[in-house]
Amino acid sequence: MIQRTMAAPWLGAAYYPEDWPEELQPEDIRLMQEMGLNVMRVGEFAWSRMEPREGEYDFGWLHRVVERLHAAGIATVLCTPSATPPAWLTAKHPDMLVLRSDGQRQQHGARRHCCSNNPAYREATARIVKQLAREFAGKPGVIGWQLDNEIHRQERGCFCPVCEAKFRARLQARFETVEEMNRTWGLGLWSMDYTSFDEVPAPRAHVFHHPSLTAEWLHFQSDSNAEFLDMQADLLRAGGVDVPIGTDMMPTNGQHYPHTNRQMDVVQYNHYDDDSHLWAAVFWMDYIRNLKPRPFWNTETSTCWNGGVTIQGYREPGFCRANSWLPFALGGEMNCYWLWRAHWAGQELMHGSVVSSCGRPLHIADEVREVAEGLERARDFLTDTACARSGLAMHFSAQAWDTFQAQPMVPRLASPIGGRPYAYASTLNDEIYRALIEAQLRPDIIDPAADLTNYRLVYSPFLPCIEEGNLSRRLPDWLEQGGVWVAGPLTDVRTPEGTKYTHAPFGHLESLAGIYCKYELPGHPKDFRIRWWNGEESAGGYIYDGLECREGCQSLGTYLEAPMAGLAAAAWQPIGSGGILILGTQPPANVLVSLLRWAGEKVGVRPVAQADANLLVVPRRGPRAEGWVCVELHNRPARLVLGRPVVDLLTGERLEGKITVAPFGVRVLQAAER
Amino acid sequence: MIQRTMAAPWLGAAYYPEDWPEELQPEDIRLMQEMGLNVMRVGEFAWSRMEPREGEYDFGWLHRVVERLHAAGIATVLCTPSATPPAWLTAKHPDMLVLRSDGQRQQHGARRHCCSNNPAYREATARIVKQLAREFAGKPGVIGWQLDNEIHRQERGCFCPVCEAKFRARLQARFETVEEMNRTWGLGLWSMDYTSFDEVPAPRAHVFHHPSLTAEWLHFQSDSNAEFLDMQADLLRAGGVDVPIGTDMMPTNGQHYPHTNRQMDVVQYNHYDDDSHLWAAVFWMDYIRNLKPRPFWNTETSTCWNGGVTIQGYREPGFCRANSWLPFALGGEMNCYWLWRAHWAGQELMHGSVVSSCGRPLHIADEVREVAEGLERARDFLTDTACARSGLAMHFSAQAWDTFQAQPMVPRLASPIGGRPYAYASTLNDEIYRALIEAQLRPDIIDPAADLTNYRLVYSPFLPCIEEGNLSRRLPDWLEQGGVWVAGPLTDVRTPEGTKYTHAPFGHLESLAGIYCKYELPGHPKDFRIRWWNGEESAGGYIYDGLECREGCQSLGTYLEAPMAGLAAAAWQPIGSGGILILGTQPPANVLVSLLRWAGEKVGVRPVAQADANLLVVPRRGPRAEGWVCVELHNRPARLVLGRPVVDLLTGERLEGKITVAPFGVRVLQAAER
Amino acid sequence: MIQRTMAAPWLGAAYYPEDWPEELQPEDIRLMQEMGLNVMRVGEFAWSRMEPREGEYDFGWLHRVVERLHAAGIATVLCTPSATPPAWLTAKHPDMLVLRSDGQRQQHGARRHCCSNNPAYREATARIVKQLAREFAGKPGVIGWQLDNEIHRQERGCFCPVCEAKFRARLQARFETVEEMNRTWGLGLWSMDYTSFDEVPAPRAHVFHHPSLTAEWLHFQSDSNAEFLDMQADLLRAGGVDVPIGTDMMPTNGQHYPHTNRQMDVVQYNHYDDDSHLWAAVFWMDYIRNLKPRPFWNTETSTCWNGGVTIQGYREPGFCRANSWLPFALGGEMNCYWLWRAHWAGQELMHGSVVSSCGRPLHIADEVREVAEGLERARDFLTDTACARSGLAMHFSAQAWDTFQAQPMVPRLASPIGGRPYAYASTLNDEIYRALIEAQLRPDIIDPAADLTNYRLVYSPFLPCIEEGNLSRRLPDWLEQGGVWVAGPLTDVRTPEGTKYTHAPFGHLESLAGIYCKYELPGHPKDFRIRWWNGEESAGGYIYDGLECREGCQSLGTYLEAPMAGLAAAAWQPIGSGGILILGTQPPANVLVSLLRWAGEKVGVRPVAQADANLLVVPRRGPRAEGWVCVELHNRPARLVLGRPVVDLLTGERLEGKITVAPFGVRVLQAAER
Repeated sequence: MIQRTMAAPWLGAAYYPEDWPEELQPEDIRLMQEMGLNVMRVGEFAWSRMEPREGEYDFGWLHRVVERLHAAGIATVLCTPSATPPAWLTAKHPDMLVLRSDGQRQQHGARRHCCSNNPAYREATARIVKQLAREFAGKPGVIGWQLDNEIHRQERGCFCPVCEAKFRARLQARFETVEEMNRTWGLGLWSMDYTSFDEVPAPRAHVFHHPSLTAEWLHFQSDSNAEFLDMQADLLRAGGVDVPIGTDMMPTNGQHYPHTNRQMDVVQYNHYDDDSHLWAAVFWMDYIRNLKPRPFWNTETSTCWNGGVTIQGYREPGFCRANSWLPFALGGEMNCYWLWRAHWAGQELMHGSVVSSCGRPLHIADEVREVAEGLERARDFLTDTACARSGLAMHFSAQAWDTFQAQPMVPRLASPIGGRPYAYASTLNDEIYRALIEAQLRPDIIDPAADLTNYRLVYSPFLPCIEEGNLSRRLPDWLEQGGVWVAGPLTDVRTPEGTKYTHAPFGHLESLAGIYCKYELPGHPKDFRIRWWNGEESAGGYIYDGLECREGCQSLGTYLEAPMAGLAAAAWQPIGSGGILILGTQPPANVLVSLLRWAGEKVGVRPVAQADANLLVVPRRGPRAEGWVCVELHNRPARLVLGRPVVDLLTGERLEGKITVAPFGVRVLQAAER
Repeated sequence: MIQRTMAAPWLGAAYYPEDWPEELQPEDIRLMQEMGLNVMRVGEFAWSRMEPREGEYDFGWLHRVVERLHAAGIATVLCTPSATPPAWLTAKHPDMLVLRSDGQRQQHGARRHCCSNNPAYREATARIVKQLAREFAGKPGVIGWQLDNEIHRQERGCFCPVCEAKFRARLQARFETVEEMNRTWGLGLWSMDYTSFDEVPAPRAHVFHHPSLTAEWLHFQSDSNAEFLDMQADLLRAGGVDVPIGTDMMPTNGQHYPHTNRQMDVVQYNHYDDDSHLWAAVFWMDYIRNLKPRPFWNTETSTCWNGGVTIQGYREPGFCRANSWLPFALGGEMNCYWLWRAHWAGQELMHGSVVSSCGRPLHIADEVREVAEGLERARDFLTDTACARSGLAMHFSAQAWDTFQAQPMVPRLASPIGGRPYAYASTLNDEIYRALIEAQLRPDIIDPAADLTNYRLVYSPFLPCIEEGNLSRRLPDWLEQGGVWVAGPLTDVRTPEGTKYTHAPFGHLESLAGIYCKYELPGHPKDFRIRWWNGEESAGGYIYDGLECREGCQSLGTYLEAPMAGLAAAAWQPIGSGGILILGTQPPANVLVSLLRWAGEKVGVRPVAQADANLLVVPRRGPRAEGWVCVELHNRPARLVLGRPVVDLLTGERLEGKITVAPFGVRVLQAAER
Repeated sequence: MIQRTMAAPWLGAAYYPEDWPEELQPEDIRLMQEMGLNVMRVGEFAWSRMEPREGEYDFGWLHRVVERLHAAGIATVLCTPSATPPAWLTAKHPDMLVLRSDGQRQQHGARRHCCSNNPAYREATARIVKQLAREFAGKPGVIGWQLDNEIHRQERGCFCPVCEAKFRARLQARFETVEEMNRTWGLGLWSMDYTSFDEVPAPRAHVFHHPSLTAEWLHFQSDSNAEFLDMQADLLRAGGVDVPIGTDMMPTNGQHYPHTNRQMDVVQYNHYDDDSHLWAAVFWMDYIRNLKPRPFWNTETSTCWNGGVTIQGYREPGFCRANSWLPFALGGEMNCYWLWRAHWAGQELMHGSVVSSCGRPLHIADEVREVAEGLERARDFLTDTACARSGLAMHFSAQAWDTFQAQPMVPRLASPIGGRPYAYASTLNDEIYRALIEAQLRPDIIDPAADLTNYRLVYSPFLPCIEEGNLSRRLPDWLEQGGVWVAGPLTDVRTPEGTKYTHAPFGHLESLAGIYCKYELPGHPKDFRIRWWNGEESAGGYIYDGLECREGCQSLGTYLEAPMAGLAAAAWQPIGSGGILILGTQPPANVLVSLLRWAGEKVGVRPVAQADANLLVVPRRGPRAEGWVCVELHNRPARLVLGRPVVDLLTGERLEGKITVAPFGVRVLQAAER
């Protein structure tokens, strides 16, 4: 048994006592202690156990779980059960079941099958949340709350009459008159323009709708979920809850992350990236770290494989270790596995876990114990330090995600099927961000509304609207003061409404950067060759803007082929002590990295480590300590050159010079005196 | 013209006199005689000819057909026409049309478009069936009846209100209280638990439903069809029918075969396997042979290609011969082609036949004649002998099929698309059974409820529940008495309700076989290496159980890789004079065959012939004769070593020693004096 | 600026003034003039601008546009806006929205979302069309009218109650009694036969319906659209319009082209074939040229790429030139780009155009100007000459297209997926027609009803019914008088109702050609080898008829494999001074061309030029001039051998002997004195 402290860093799992005989709890808790877990997430789907019949509550079992855990030194994150309303509720109000775009109703028997806008669902949710607050506010051992579970806009969301009416009211509130809406979105084309808001349809997927209408609907559905959570957070706080409240979700699920977390205290994040894709989790952690001052909680991750009714995605030995350390390396303070004990029935009975449904520890138990021990050893360093900013930020916009869903603009690069539409998030993640971190560039991923003053180099790829978060108004001063902005491709090409600017292909870039976009060509079915400023030649990708450089602007890449031969594919314009590097196409990874290093040199943004591409190196800094957390991401050895002597807190070794990190290995390196 | 006897073995076709001018019948019958056919299936879709308006019957035309055929020495299998109710009926009761899972109604104009549970449909069916009995019970020439046509659960079946209400009533009858249902299926998870049976939805495909509920729905739909047929059989018998009654269907169509045939006298089987897949038909015949004491009828098969509105799947010369002989080799007594004369219109006008729609014999006519002649020559041998059991049986469970449909558990092996779900029937057929028969192991395929005393070696791959048919209770005695059981993988891993056991990964195997399953890992996306007892090395497949051998258990294969290195992938435990060979993974075909031969040696189960893999050799034995029917399955020459002298009844040759069988050739070899 | 004449040949674009501030018009018109455009299509979707509220009309803006254009020497093709009814109309009559086969309603916000049979939609359309006639009949500058936009049967069309009722009425009108319908279509099979027309369902796609019913429904939906257009044409004419009326559509969209154009004055044609597929546009132009005496209008084509919400399909430099010239080469008198100025919003904002949404000319502007200049130079030649017939015609039947959609008969050749159904139009286009024109055979593509006397060699591949347009009755005389008919495969195999003939596999071919079809085999999954009359050997394709040649018939290809060895795959029967060449299978391209040249030799039909396969050479002839228009189709150099001296009207060069045409180059060669 590992002696754990009941404090951050938290290592734990999701626990479903409602699914098992109460007699099993002591054995479960014994095993939890043996593995060094100090937190459990409890109650997320247990509404029918909490309120078996309307208005009849039963919380005794839950109190006993929380208390037994607490007595064993294990904290609880308590969950509101709104994702799974009981059958008596959906049976009484069948219209609370989501009405899908294809006209099919959801049915009882799954989860997240109710409409966040339905009044009866909201009322019943409010009642159970208030009861939970009444019972558990201030309860010893409860260190936080989770609202709902993985709330998100499934496909296009719900098309019930309540949603349609709320959507129309929203449009009316935004535009006041239909004429204004018609004008803003250009609905006069195709006679789409409305004479009353009551004529506007909830835009179903089988109809070829206007992309601005579609995007607005997507925002609306996302906002409806956020509202539903805000209500819950307000009720818990009004009920006396004073520990952090959050909602566990994946940024990968089409829900606007910053909006949804606006009223939350802590960002809770679920991910199931496997051993072939760990950088994807790093991307999202580099994003969510910046949404709240408080360290985020990784509320769900896989121990060793996924599985619903089918088992799949085995992860290699060492994955559990590396994956478990990621949140702690990247600014979080909790890692919870899904799930503690595998289900014995139901839709997810094949999913990996910590112990099997018959209570046998899985083969990863040793890695779990190893992580728990390491966290204890590194506790002071982890809690005393935070991620050190490198000066580099990259924009990621939830609004852009909706824009590209409604209007993909370009086909997916290298898609085996010619016409597959562009996927914003995975392009940024797999094609752009990955190249950056493999070059040891260490970006914060930030929302367009984020403050720029923390950064010297800001990169905005595929950011169609820079009016979001007033970015376009904040940029000039920041540039004047020495900021370097790398923009494009497909940046600044849309108004906030998803329409084009009509004075120029860009809203602001031509005047800001002193360029003139002569032609814009598709990157399908062919690409165009470019000679870059450093002598390399390559094609670009996705889209090709042919730029004329004016006003002292310098070409950094020149097209070699008709009809754009001689025009620039990338250009640099110094502004004040900073400048803009505009990209007219997406360069290949190596050129992109060279460009960013070229631009970074101007403002002292450099790689944070001299290390192999497969090693994540996260500088940490605090008032009393500094150092690095290193996690190997690709299950092969990695090398790192240390600039100063360190102590590896996990092993106690003193290290300097060239060191290695084992496959899926982790090192917590505290800087030592030379 | 071939002189045929109007008795088994029967060779014939489906005949649709309702589709052609009556004047054509003499020419049709002349051609039938010329080709040696002695049976026709008549009437299966002709309801609107039999009852053109509600309550107005017209059977004159059908009497005349039966009589003309009889006069020509051709028997009739008469069919009930319930698969195609007339338009006046569906128009009067539009709610009898199937309501699909996606909310779409079927329409008049196809077949099998009505709900087996609909009372109006059942009533109308009962009336026409009674009329048919009244007219044709005892009719000379009528040698049997076929009920409906290829009844099966299309996709998830019908979701009409009648079905939903019957499903709820069934649940109530099974569980008595909702609490019991909730507890049995673990519905407390996700708050799925119901407070009334009226809340239980008919589980539509677009909802992520609980696999136990889904499986129960699949059973219910299958049982509803079986009930519908039982009603028809009862009415025919009550109406005086005393010849065999059956229902022609494919086991490949998601309908529980043993249940559906429970009230039938004869198993009727349709198949359209082509020349690249003939072993698949052999599998099903090895299965259906064991369902009834009476020899089965192969009611439909293709002559030379398939085709609905599109022609496809040409079969090579010789296929018709080999394919026609399969049922006679494997325990049946009838082979009927679909169809006699190609349709001149409709949805299947491109399908292959015996004569074309303009009455011209197809190129396979010579093969049909050859088969008819052969059957006459081998008549005595075929009717005097039956398939001789080899002592080997392999389980196939219709219930398991539904279980795997509701919860595939594992991905499909070697699937081009990683996540394609496991397909039970085709895995057993293509990956397991095929390996067995190519090694000349000659199994009966049996239902879990089948008596074990006929067998010395029983193989149960992918049989999740061994409580089915009380198998788990019958096994210990059978093992004690010398039976050898080969179990796994994924055998004994589910309760009858499709939930997991919670005391161990298996329900009974650990205690029966003295093993302990330490780990269970997925076979996706990678496989694990094993060294087998015979020195071979290979990966396994689908799932990987890592077993600790205890209590005298012997490992037959050891994992070579972390995290299971050293654990057993297969183990042998002697029990009484028999034993259990447990498989923790699916071995490749060659290892599987070696294992089965290794186990077979213990109980004298051996290959039934020394022959090439492409030759099907079926031992036949009777009071007065014995021998083998050989059918070449892969259109290439085959060799067979005879253990004793024989006479080939088709050619009259006396043969001994090494002989050959021509591509798609057939030999009927009767043992002769030495 | 290019000085253009306001007369044919017309070069122009689609113009959407309703989408832009009126102040922009002078700049737009200046740019149009600069590029040499002399026609604009205006108003096609502008119903809501014309009638912003029911009965309130506003045509002032449209008058001003027409007048400004006219003043600048630019003509207008005025459009009826019926494809996009205003929101006030669809909101008042939600039942006018198309009800799809899957039960989903269309919604306002797209285009062509209303049912052509809906009375309210028809009434409202009639009112706006009458108003347009009242305002614009005789208006100076308006040179023609376009009705609606790309009307077509989307998938299976509309399934609303109005459509269902009209369909039943149509059946009643056609058949008078249900018995006649039942008999004609063979509905007795499967008890499909009806006792009342009210029982006949609108055949939805999810039901396995009878192909004759399905085909009739497809015809009905197509005819409903044609009726809707006829109404508009009648109203315009009644309102005083005396310039040509047409409807712009693609033959590639499942709408019966000859029927739809029956009441039109001019065929208007839209195409978006890209640079890898230009022969496809040539096919359709060879077809539409023959539908009306008046030169057709190419109303829409792409300048340089396509794009809805996603940009794709960039065309190489030169494409715009070659593509723009095609209609003028092939018998048209107008080419209009889609679109003039790219949209700034909406569903098609990524589409290529002449100028961008911010008014910048695209890179193809030079090619547009070059085309305009060339048209002026070649004006007299183009207007004085017409396409010269070569004596060769190939049948293309819109009815056959529906037949094959309802019953594909054969799988698609070389389909990567075995079972993909046959696609009539693309097979004829890509596999047959392409081979012909690359051999410089220059066919007219004609409807089966077309007069044969203009042709000496007529080729009818895949024409299932030759009773269409009385072809079968007209053929014998034409053959007697020296015509040569190449027929097959799959020609003459269906009655007008899509059913089979029952006396023979063909309706007429056996008696006409003196052959007997012994066997018919599928071309899936294998093909059969043939030795052709010229010594070549190859497989055929799709279907294999094995023919016995009788009565002086000569085999032109003999099967080499069982079961058809020795039978003919192709045969020649002389008739009168002509003859029939029957094809029992589809030969490969080289054999097909050899066969057609062999047959052509008999009647003096020969290649029209000695030129490379990638060069389109169109002979033109008129009372005062003759010559050739040559367009290179594959973006590589082409060679042409001139039989006489010519002048290239575009360059003024005098040429003779061997000349070249540049990639995507165009030459207009007027025969000169030697």
